[in-house]
Amino acid sequence: MTERPNRQILLAERPSGKLEESHFKAIDSTIGEPGPGELLVRTLLLSIDPANRAWMQGRTYREQLGAGEVMAGGALCEVIAANGAPIGPKTIVQCEPGWQEYAIVPANRVLPVTVRGPLSHHMSVLGITGLTAYFGLLEVGRPQKGETVVVSAAAGATGSVAGQIARIEGSRVVGVTGSDDKNRMLERDLGFDASVNHRSEKLRADLAAACPNGIDVYFDNVGGRVLEAVLPLMRTHGRIVCCGAVSQYDSASPAPGPAGVPGQLIVKRLRMEGFLVSDFIGEWVNAQEQLAAWVASGELKVLEDVVEGLESAPRALIGILAGDNVGKRMVRVAPDPA
Amino acid sequence: MTERPNRQILLAERPSGKLEESHFKAIDSTIGEPGPGELLVRTLLLSIDPANRAWMQGRTYREQLGAGEVMAGGALCEVIAANGAPIGPKTIVQCEPGWQEYAIVPANRVLPVTVRGPLSHHMSVLGITGLTAYFGLLEVGRPQKGETVVVSAAAGATGSVAGQIARIEGSRVVGVTGSDDKNRMLERDLGFDASVNHRSEKLRADLAAACPNGIDVYFDNVGGRVLEAVLPLMRTHGRIVCCGAVSQYDSASPAPGPAGVPGQLIVKRLRMEGFLVSDFIGEWVNAQEQLAAWVASGELKVLEDVVEGLESAPRALIGILAGDNVGKRMVRVAPDPA
Repeated sequence: MTERPNRQILLAERPSGKLEESHFKAIDSTIGEPGPGELLVRTLLLSIDPANRAWMQGRTYREQLGAGEVMAGGALCEVIAANGAPIGPKTIVQCEPGWQEYAIVPANRVLPVTVRGPLSHHMSVLGITGLTAYFGLLEVGRPQKGETVVVSAAAGATGSVAGQIARIEGSRVVGVTGSDDKNRMLERDLGFDASVNHRSEKLRADLAAACPNGIDVYFDNVGGRVLEAVLPLMRTHGRIVCCGAVSQYDSASPAPGPAGVPGQLIVKRLRMEGFLVSDFIGEWVNAQEQLAAWVASGELKVLEDVVEGLESAPRALIGILAGDNVGKRMVRVAPDPA
Repeated sequence: MTERPNRQILLAERPSGKLEESHFKAIDSTIGEPGPGELLVRTLLLSIDPANRAWMQGRTYREQLGAGEVMAGGALCEVIAANGAPIGPKTIVQCEPGWQEYAIVPANRVLPVTVRGPLSHHMSVLGITGLTAYFGLLEVGRPQKGETVVVSAAAGATGSVAGQIARIEGSRVVGVTGSDDKNRMLERDLGFDASVNHRSEKLRADLAAACPNGIDVYFDNVGGRVLEAVLPLMRTHGRIVCCGAVSQYDSASPAPGPAGVPGQLIVKRLRMEGFLVSDFIGEWVNAQEQLAAWVASGELKVLEDVVEGLESAPRALIGILAGDNVGKRMVRVAPDPA
């Protein structure tokens, strides 16, 4: 029975307020062989997402993370060994190994990836965040030509794709970020029509100026103050896509909800709707084909933010909660296989 | 040119906090003849709704009411005289005369009523509140057989109909009111499966006990604290029908929104949606036929709360905001025509 060394990062302590590096602990462990129906996988690219922080706060669509556990996270992995599973070694799979170099995962919990183009695209535009943008915008938000679409965390992995799809579909697109540099990039490189800095003291007035006809679709990645500022500007029969609430994840207790709920929803007949990309799993392949075609034609730009080394993961997560990423943040744990 | 005496109730002052009788003023005025395309109508039954109070707070789906104006309100009226309009005298119409004995209204802003059964039914179960319950529950909430439906302000005009339709459609129905007497009535007379008093200090625990499988549809007439208590109990893919927010109308400034927005919407893929009954106007006749059939068969009980005399209208509105009505509150201004 082979045991191989396995570097792991544990959630040492559940944060009660802001997440800090001291909440994590790196340890040297070992890992054995996969049991029946299991795979031994090697982590290549680890996905870093605001959701990682939300999992520490309480029960979401998964159980709350506990202290002492290997930190949870999705990744692109290479299969090293399979035990009675119909997935061969060297296959690239999307799975949830957690923050470690190697993991043993049930074969029925992995998704084999048919690699097209750079592997990292399967983590960004063709991965969960790109698919989330695609289904959230098109299936939940359903923008019509000429409508105004506002996207928050617009320079992030999901927001940057959602905004560009809205532009491709013929909407006027307004991005919200926390930095003027990001906003310039959105307008110059990604074809956003306008942008607003959410740190502005006159956020609502800035939004109103950027959206002279009001807002038809709000693709919300942040919740909180931006959501509250958007609500009075929504047009009749507008739609709010509830994709994330990153403004609420890194604190001891969630803030009160936005004023205007449910009042604004009633008087303007708004629909506010949450979704998970996994609800659309049967349509992923078609969506990936469309996304890949837009990338190939140059209509959809891919923003990636790759951080090197497993040990960087805690810092990479803390940073993403403060908005220091541009595009899809991931941690390279091992080089792409030859 | 005939001038007839016309008693009117004005909104003397826009309330900044709780609504009081001193905000209204009754005056004796006169009214002349209708101009071209207009009708002179006599108010029979005046509708008293929490929305009357919301109109004083700011722009809703109509302009904010101003001080010195005749208080706005819908009613069932009898046409007294028509000037070049295809609607004859004695026709019963639904329109918006405001709080006065007579009004001149544009003929294209009235809806002729084909009276079936008691006239008051056209204000309650077959009127705006009954139709609101019908479309809100069936088109927005879309309960499935065996699902759990919670209705707030469940002894009110809309809630009592919404809850009964949910029962007829095969849902488990839980009513929320502010009184144990009302709750007993819901369970004993209207076939609700359970009920909860929103004044309870352990509201969330009471709701959880009344909804052991969680909540699939919440028909929300109140917003605020009840909405906040319901959110954590919603099941995956649950729906919240945003019909009213009466807990927010009678105060100086709206409270913060419910905690859990947008967090709960995301992790449980909830849909929260506002609507106005007027969006479904093309389907009103069919809905009225269905509602009348349920009334005729005894499956749907009609609750009405009739207050006598125009001068009672301010007190009737103040009372409804405190929840002192059972069923559809209306003010009888003139007797039914022979």
